[in-house]
Amino acid sequence: MQPSARLAQLPSELRLLSRSSMRTARPLSSTGHQLLVSQAVTGSCHRYGGAAQQGRAMTTSQLDSKRDERERVVILGSGWAGYTVARALDPKKYQAVVVSPRSYFAFTPLLASTSVGTLEFRTAMEPIRTRRTNVDFFQGWADEVDFKNKKITIEEAVEEGGQSTAGVGDRNAGESKKHRFERREAEAQKGKLFDLTYDKLIVSVGCYSQTFGTPGVKEHAMFLKDVGDARKIRNRILACFETAALPTTTDEQRKQLLNFAVVGGGPTGIEFSAELHDIIREDLARIYPELVHFSKITVYDVASKVLPMFDEKLAQYAMNTFAREGISIKTNHHVEELRPGAPGEKVSSKDDHSVYTLKVKEEGEVGIGMVVWSTGLMQNPFVAHALSDVHEIPNDFRRLEGPSNDPGNLRWRVKIDEKTGSVITDTRLRLKLVADAKDDTRTEAILNDVFVLGDCAIMEGAQYPATAQVAAQKASWLAKRLNKGDIETVGGFAWKNMGVMAYLGNWNALLQGGGNAGGISGRLAWIIWRGAYLTKSVSWRNKILIPVYWAINWLFGRDVSRF
Amino acid sequence: MQPSARLAQLPSELRLLSRSSMRTARPLSSTGHQLLVSQAVTGSCHRYGGAAQQGRAMTTSQLDSKRDERERVVILGSGWAGYTVARALDPKKYQAVVVSPRSYFAFTPLLASTSVGTLEFRTAMEPIRTRRTNVDFFQGWADEVDFKNKKITIEEAVEEGGQSTAGVGDRNAGESKKHRFERREAEAQKGKLFDLTYDKLIVSVGCYSQTFGTPGVKEHAMFLKDVGDARKIRNRILACFETAALPTTTDEQRKQLLNFAVVGGGPTGIEFSAELHDIIREDLARIYPELVHFSKITVYDVASKVLPMFDEKLAQYAMNTFAREGISIKTNHHVEELRPGAPGEKVSSKDDHSVYTLKVKEEGEVGIGMVVWSTGLMQNPFVAHALSDVHEIPNDFRRLEGPSNDPGNLRWRVKIDEKTGSVITDTRLRLKLVADAKDDTRTEAILNDVFVLGDCAIMEGAQYPATAQVAAQKASWLAKRLNKGDIETVGGFAWKNMGVMAYLGNWNALLQGGGNAGGISGRLAWIIWRGAYLTKSVSWRNKILIPVYWAINWLFGRDVSRF
Repeated sequence: MQPSARLAQLPSELRLLSRSSMRTARPLSSTGHQLLVSQAVTGSCHRYGGAAQQGRAMTTSQLDSKRDERERVVILGSGWAGYTVARALDPKKYQAVVVSPRSYFAFTPLLASTSVGTLEFRTAMEPIRTRRTNVDFFQGWADEVDFKNKKITIEEAVEEGGQSTAGVGDRNAGESKKHRFERREAEAQKGKLFDLTYDKLIVSVGCYSQTFGTPGVKEHAMFLKDVGDARKIRNRILACFETAALPTTTDEQRKQLLNFAVVGGGPTGIEFSAELHDIIREDLARIYPELVHFSKITVYDVASKVLPMFDEKLAQYAMNTFAREGISIKTNHHVEELRPGAPGEKVSSKDDHSVYTLKVKEEGEVGIGMVVWSTGLMQNPFVAHALSDVHEIPNDFRRLEGPSNDPGNLRWRVKIDEKTGSVITDTRLRLKLVADAKDDTRTEAILNDVFVLGDCAIMEGAQYPATAQVAAQKASWLAKRLNKGDIETVGGFAWKNMGVMAYLGNWNALLQGGGNAGGISGRLAWIIWRGAYLTKSVSWRNKILIPVYWAINWLFGRDVSRF
Repeated sequence: MQPSARLAQLPSELRLLSRSSMRTARPLSSTGHQLLVSQAVTGSCHRYGGAAQQGRAMTTSQLDSKRDERERVVILGSGWAGYTVARALDPKKYQAVVVSPRSYFAFTPLLASTSVGTLEFRTAMEPIRTRRTNVDFFQGWADEVDFKNKKITIEEAVEEGGQSTAGVGDRNAGESKKHRFERREAEAQKGKLFDLTYDKLIVSVGCYSQTFGTPGVKEHAMFLKDVGDARKIRNRILACFETAALPTTTDEQRKQLLNFAVVGGGPTGIEFSAELHDIIREDLARIYPELVHFSKITVYDVASKVLPMFDEKLAQYAMNTFAREGISIKTNHHVEELRPGAPGEKVSSKDDHSVYTLKVKEEGEVGIGMVVWSTGLMQNPFVAHALSDVHEIPNDFRRLEGPSNDPGNLRWRVKIDEKTGSVITDTRLRLKLVADAKDDTRTEAILNDVFVLGDCAIMEGAQYPATAQVAAQKASWLAKRLNKGDIETVGGFAWKNMGVMAYLGNWNALLQGGGNAGGISGRLAWIIWRGAYLTKSVSWRNKILIPVYWAINWLFGRDVSRF
């Protein structure tokens, strides 16, 4: 494919953000890694490495000196897959180097709790650097991969705390080829880029939030993928109530401000609605007794039912629980737009408004205080661009099948799942390549030292969901194989379904066992839900803090200060 | 004085911020209240109240209906004075209404600890609204006071979490008379302003941070007056280390990034230096072992000694302790400028730099990672403008002294201390007025129902320091008097000096008793220091959380994640 053709494929709705505006504004997208200049655009992955070296001295010499005889494993991303594998690798055998724009791992199942103050934000965070771990870390975006020379280019991203929110779009999308080239040259000159060699590469950059291009959602909705998202939601809920409490606010405005919508009826959307209902019922109703009758929570979903991963009976239990508590569930509803200002109101300045308008196909325009968006995953731009064209492959790649004539002329690309855009791996989580010859015959290969896992990868022949559970199990499996050196001799990875859980509010939960195990619901499920997350939380620090906060907030109520 | 003459007095270095930029940018100044349009400029305090009523319906009817037979006490500010008096007023007798741009009280002695992660931010915060308190609250800036009709005008300020940092300058300073008028009209139309009547008014708006107009300080230095400041400092320290850890950073840059300056050798500056030294020695030295030798802490002060409020012997102990731990104290040093970029470097874009240059008269230009500024207090713009001109006074004011001829023609103004700009009160904390007749005779009066306390007030005849201790004692005294209704019959307020404390790092502190009591230093003082703040912390919630965090961070180290 020609560079220009590739550029044309970039989603047109993605905004152009100049480098300088990126430095001041909160990045549009930041959870995973992103591509700055794809190989397809630059034509060569060495070109910029050279440019980078013209700037300040930039070496990884300290890292090299600590390496000793160990193999270096570079891990892109610090989510469920990356963080798990980094901690599990044997430090005597491997030098694990994590590259991520975030300096921590987010324990995502607790984010909904932190977004309403049931837990403090840091109880859902584990720093990558600690006193104890043997993991090296660079805060940056992976930028280019040179498979031939086993080298990645990294753009530093230390910024000040801006990398903690859900990714929703390619931050450099829409740039022309010339602009990309110039910006990248300038960054290289400033010493913002550096190269890092690897012996093994583990790609676990995760996904972005899917907005289906719905107008205004990227700009005005809240997401719930990272701690910064949770912080924004918490501040917004409390600001809505505080604004509603002002004498300058009319009752009509109060109704709009305290109207909360959740789009997406999966576990994240349902759990957030439940937690929101809890804080309103348990705390805000006492603090703002004259306001609470204005408040309303609605869950929208395009499908005909919520919680599709649960048995019909359990999903029905959730629907009934929500109905009893006054949370509306509107299935078969289509959200068409989210814009600032009340319905019918013309907003001149973007910042001068306190409510939003949600346009729903089935019910028209609704005034709304906050929309939390949780409708699924979009492929990470890093995967879509940086990985897709391979150019040169290392000598130790393994040819799998296909005609053997003229292998040198084959143009390799990463094998991508057409439906989801995910990278395809073999059952040993190794990156698959594919090449089409002129006679329409297809050749496949694998790269022995490049592994892809987490939400950005699909394992050939399996239909595993894109969940934390699958990512963490793959990571543990891979670390074990690498530590033992038996990846060739044992069987491939197989997911063990440990079941699904969802909190329903008011000390109720759903719990569905893996495989053919049954499900339970109600208070007992809630106790197991809390116990499971307490057990699974990573550090002793958080194993202590989480029950302390549960107890303190139960006794004294949630903290409603904003800062 | 003519309006134009008054305008000319506004500090010229204060920046003009348009309303729209205020909505998006972090406010320059936000701890206390500020004036939007001073009475002197508008000429009348009723004019805008009228304009405000043209907009949306804005009533305090809910507040009025809850009032019953009680007197309404409006309290401006939620710091040591305002928060203390609001909680101590008898809710059976008074309807306490707090007006503050912050939704919480900041427990300032613990801010230094939170700024390095020894404690979590919320342990230094108490929300004004809780499940238990009987205090009403409006989040807004007091704008105008109409003493005659006992009414204040409030500008709503719910924004999203931007009000949590130290005030350094009048956010609307430099506006022309015409612009102020127009902006205020527009705000009134949008329903951003509302009036609130009072029976008693307590002004406790606090002070701003004094920068002495030193170029670049307001823009680039960190302050330590509020929780948002502590959060910025924590993120900045960790970002400096993370940037220094990148291979793109040279050793020279590492030295600059990890060079930390504290300007001001009072308790805040000393305690912050000590806490910073603790996190570097106890945590960052283990997490970044190869970087810690680059780090350096320097305390600058223009005076010839630090901690002037302590005995010579105790101050000397502090100097020796710091010297032993490698913290430089540079007395008799004058900071002249702080600007982005390394020494000698030209910075084109404001955002594209990672180090700063500190210009010190005695040592030239120094590359620096962060400057924490703590050199004292500047008068709150609210006091300087909104209170200074009185126009009309209520009928129940009390004439104190002066010629009795023609009292109606006297033009009253608030009595201001010329040196500090603070408001002067009588010993019962009531606002003093003064008027000069044409024959140069001076008449004084007091307003019976207006009290001023905290850092913005000075009590006539006393030389009390501007500390939390004095503010809180005044607040308790006043609440007691109002509850008992005996303000006329008991003696005036007298401060009881409870002594001063300062943390010196490494489990050492200074402690000096009040009056002629002696001082102690070292480990025992540290135990008392911790015990005192634990006892003084307000809520049970924080009395539990504070020791939990002390224990957890001692066991597992401080959390170094940024978000």
